[in-house]
Parts: sequence; C-alpha cells; structure tokens
Amino acid sequence: MGTNGIGDEFNLIAKYFAPLAAGAPGALGLTDDAAIVDIPVGERLVAAVDALVAGVHFLVDDPPGDIARKIIRVNLSDLAAMGARPLGLLLAAVLPRNVSDDWMGPFAAGLKADIEKFHAPLIGGDTVAGDGPLTLSLTALGAVPAGRALTRGGALVGDEIYVTGTIGDGVLGLGVAKGVLKGLEPSQESYLLERYRLPRPRIDFGIRLLGHANAAIDISDGLIADLGHICECSGVGACLVAQAVPLSPAAQAAVGLDEGRFPNLLMGGDDYELLFTSAPENDVALRAIAAELAIDVTRIGSIKEGSGLEVEGGEGLGLNIADGGYRHFH
Amino acid sequence: MGTNGIGDEFNLIAKYFAPLAAGAPGALGLTDDAAIVDIPVGERLVAAVDALVAGVHFLVDDPPGDIARKIIRVNLSDLAAMGARPLGLLLAAVLPRNVSDDWMGPFAAGLKADIEKFHAPLIGGDTVAGDGPLTLSLTALGAVPAGRALTRGGALVGDEIYVTGTIGDGVLGLGVAKGVLKGLEPSQESYLLERYRLPRPRIDFGIRLLGHANAAIDISDGLIADLGHICECSGVGACLVAQAVPLSPAAQAAVGLDEGRFPNLLMGGDDYELLFTSAPENDVALRAIAAELAIDVTRIGSIKEGSGLEVEGGEGLGLNIADGGYRHFH
Repeated sequence: MGTNGIGDEFNLIAKYFAPLAAGAPGALGLTDDAAIVDIPVGERLVAAVDALVAGVHFLVDDPPGDIARKIIRVNLSDLAAMGARPLGLLLAAVLPRNVSDDWMGPFAAGLKADIEKFHAPLIGGDTVAGDGPLTLSLTALGAVPAGRALTRGGALVGDEIYVTGTIGDGVLGLGVAKGVLKGLEPSQESYLLERYRLPRPRIDFGIRLLGHANAAIDISDGLIADLGHICECSGVGACLVAQAVPLSPAAQAAVGLDEGRFPNLLMGGDDYELLFTSAPENDVALRAIAAELAIDVTRIGSIKEGSGLEVEGGEGLGLNIADGGYRHFH
Repeated sequence: MGTNGIGDEFNLIAKYFAPLAAGAPGALGLTDDAAIVDIPVGERLVAAVDALVAGVHFLVDDPPGDIARKIIRVNLSDLAAMGARPLGLLLAAVLPRNVSDDWMGPFAAGLKADIEKFHAPLIGGDTVAGDGPLTLSLTALGAVPAGRALTRGGALVGDEIYVTGTIGDGVLGLGVAKGVLKGLEPSQESYLLERYRLPRPRIDFGIRLLGHANAAIDISDGLIADLGHICECSGVGACLVAQAVPLSPAAQAAVGLDEGRFPNLLMGGDDYELLFTSAPENDVALRAIAAELAIDVTRIGSIKEGSGLEVEGGEGLGLNIADGGYRHFH
C-alpha cells in the first residue's frame, strides 16, 4: 500500500461502498464472492449493463456525485424500457490510482442518493486501480412479470409512436458542458446541463406501460436511431412527424438562436426518455397514466408497413437516417 | 465512423458478440435494452462482477483468447465459491479505438470456447471505445437452491480447512509471463503460464460442496488473505499447516531453486482454487466427490476459536499475515 492513494480496495469498499448495501441482506455486506437475490415466483429477472468512460460519456471535471448518479440512471433507464422494477446494482469501478477522499466522498454520496431514490441497493462490485481514465461499469438487476416484458420487437402496424418528456436536451446539455452552446439564459443553460448530467429513468411509467405498450426503448442513441432500432427489431416501418417532437423551452430557445440545430436534437443521444408504441385505442389510458405520474407524453408518429423511417417535415433538415444516432467507434 | 477502427459498436456487437448469445432466448439477440432470465422456482439468483484491466490483471500482449477466457473464468470462480451453476454472462468491454479484427477474432473465439465449456451464454453487454487500457467488466449470473448458498461466513470451530488443486501456480505463472522467473524446464514454465492465464473455475465441485462445506471462497487475493476473509466473516480463527499446502511439481521445482519463494506462494493471488471448511465427519464424502470429479483436495489446517491466523511451520518464513494477499491500491 503506497502513500499516494487513499488505501487499498478493501478499505475503499469498507469505507465507501459497503454502507450502500444496507437493507439488502443478499449483498452479504459486499464481503462475499457474489450476491444472492430472490426473484419472486411469477417474475423474470431483467439484467442490463452499461459502461461509462471519462471523456467519452461524461467530462472528467463533472461533479463526482453526478457521475455516480448518471451511471445508475442510464442503467435503470434500460430497466424502465423493459417495464422492470429495480432489484439491485453491481458496480465495477476502475479508479485512478491517486483518487482522493475529496472525490470519493461525493461520488459515494451520489450513489447513495439514487440508490435510495430508486430503491436499488448496491449488492456487489469490484474496485480496481488503473492508469487509464475513470471507467465505471454497472449491472442493473430488475424483475418483471413473466411473459410481459416490453421489448423493441413488438411494434405493430397501426401503432402510434410516443415519447415521454422532451427530446434533444441531452445533446444540448453536452454542448453547454463543453462550452460550445452559447447565448442562452443562465437558467436555460443549467436546465440543459442537468438534463445531460442527470437523466430521469422513467421507471414508474415503464412499469405502467406493461399491457399498454407493444414496443419500448429508452433513447440513448438518439430519437431517430432508437426508432430505427424498434423498426428493425419489429420488422416494420415508421413515420415520424418532426414538428410533433416535444422540445423543452430551453431547447426551443436554442433552436430559436440557430434553426440548424433542430436535426441534431432528433439525432442526438443521452435523452433517456422512453420511446414506445401502442395501439391507438390505448391513447386515453396512456394519457391518464401520464397525468397521474405527472409525466408528459407526446404522440410523434405512427408505425407503418414495410421498413425504414420516413420523417414528415424532414425535407431539407439534412437528417442522416441510416447513420443516425451516436456511435461510439468513430 | 473513422477509418482506423473496425466499425462502430453496433457492427462489433453484431459481428462478434451476438453469435455468442445463441441458445439464450432471453438475451434477445443482444439487440434489446436488457436480458430476461428465468430463475427456477426454489432457486436464488447469484450475481458476481469482476473487472480486469490490461497491465494490472493481464499483460497487454497476452493472447486475446486467453484474456477473454480469463475474464469469464475469474467470474465463474466466484459463482463456484457460492456453489452456484452459471446461467449467463454480461460483458462491458472498453476497447482501444484502434482495435483490429486480428485481435477481436481470437478474443471472440475465446469467449465462445468458454461460453460453451461452462454453459454460460452471453446475455448482455456494452461495447465502448476508449483511450485508456483495455478494460473488461463481466457480470456472471448463476442459480443456487434457496437457502443453501455457500458463503465466507459459515466456518465453525473444529472444521477442517481444505483447498482444491495446487497453490501458488498463479503468482509463479505471472513471474514466468513477466520473464522474472527463470531456470525452470520449458514444460514447467508453460504449465505455470497456463495456470496464470487460464484459471479453472471449480463449478462442478462447488455445486457438490452444497451440504458438505460450511464456508467457501475462491482464492484470488492469495491463500493467506482469503483464509483471513473466512476467519473474519465467520468470527473464528484458523491454524494453517504450511507444509501441508499442496504445490504442483512446477511450483516445487521453483521452490527448489529458491526456498525464499515459498512464502510468496502462500500470499500470492490468482490461483482460483476453492478454499473451504467442513466438519471432520465429511472427510470421506469429500474425498469421494473429489475422486469422482478427478480434482485433488487437500486438508491444510483447521478452524479454531478466537480470531486471526496461525501458521504452523511459518516461523522464519517472513509471512506478513496482516497485509497478506494481493491488494490493488498500492
């Protein structure tokens, strides 16, 4: 054990991570080889993994607590897209060797805040010191009633297409964080920044979509790319009405400053809203659920026969649909 | 998408990873947000995560197929220590941006070999391009009969302490890989190298230990540190008989060349053998199971009242018991 770091992995786990396993007996205090989880009879386990790398998915100087909450939220968003409720989290953290208590403290506090908010205890993990960038990999475990999980492959011709919340805030927030989006009010900047740093996984809404939605996905690659995933997995086409896509006041202001930004909002990633399809007769029920949960839901198009994505009002927007969405290898 | 890499994450997944999900319908072809897994009634989910970083846990130039198999095997070893059978794997891979088909091909082939060998399909994953070292994080999911999982905390005073296989080959193999262990026969070097690169998770033996062992752990931090974990979690002490610890012929040869190596074998990590405790009356049954599975099992000590670890024959070995075992932060 050297003098530069803040201790070895056992100390880090005991000090920062073990307290986050409180309330989950199967986590065995994070002292055992693996966690034990009880999946209730009649339910299926749902498991999702996402990795976040400093400089790729978040900025090195982002607040540690926000980084912690983002890795939890992007994974819970995957559970939400299946209609699953969270059961627990396993975190593999590759930390810089010189990580300090000043960084670990707020990081662990951020984990704790969202573990409590979303009732998803930390049940396992691994902590490693590395020479590269901070790299976090989180596995989220959840449960869904047997045979009822939402997938990308269930969209039917005639379905309406909906999104929760607003679209494009994630990519605009990244622009604010990088200092390349200028000219907005400070309150608009901080709104967009928070949307980029702290996605809102639509867990409760996803659970309520069971039985109402035919297909669902969370928007991480961008609205157009993710709608493309639904079409491809379902063997259908889609018509997206560009002007129906809901924008936040801050996003509207950003487009007002430069109309050329609009296509980027449709293609940008990191919104972590739910994109789903549902039969038209469910519209009233969906709006009632949305009102009850105080979540905005907007119809943005419909599912068609055939394949591929048609964008109504997309002429001249320069949308690159085949290559739409954020791709990591480039 | 640039010209240096071999495509974006979707192409990588489709080309290399999706075929590994064959035979696991709940993996949804790795095209959905999460995987769906059925845990049989009466069983509990067991979940373990381990991360491996190039330069820390394996050498950058190690064969890609061996790296792939090592990340699977160290995780399956955690399941083995709980007595669980594998259900599936989720892999988060942070790959260098310039990763080539020449590297990915054998890496995927290594994954495939062990996925088939251990009946553990790839059910989910995330692939990211990063600037840092190759970083792999794998979550292994398994199942164990309810209430019967082996843990570190069940050792009882009077239990015998056993290990499978041989001890110290992992740390000696690392020495061979680094070129610092010299003077052995080529066949001994290649044996130790394989032991370091390709651990043998004792899945079948772990399952058979259910009902026979009171506590179990897999040796990843080193025999002495891991026996310390059992003592601490069980609230007991232990007496380890140094000369009873089983060494392979290659390890015996290495100690023959330099007796000062012996303590390092007891403290080195990466053996991935099972260390477990069991009541003395189970000895005959344990030996029958070991014979049936063609696995060597050796009694190396016993559990005592109190706390801490006493090493019979340890005088003058310079064992640093309090700080024994491999620690990542130093």
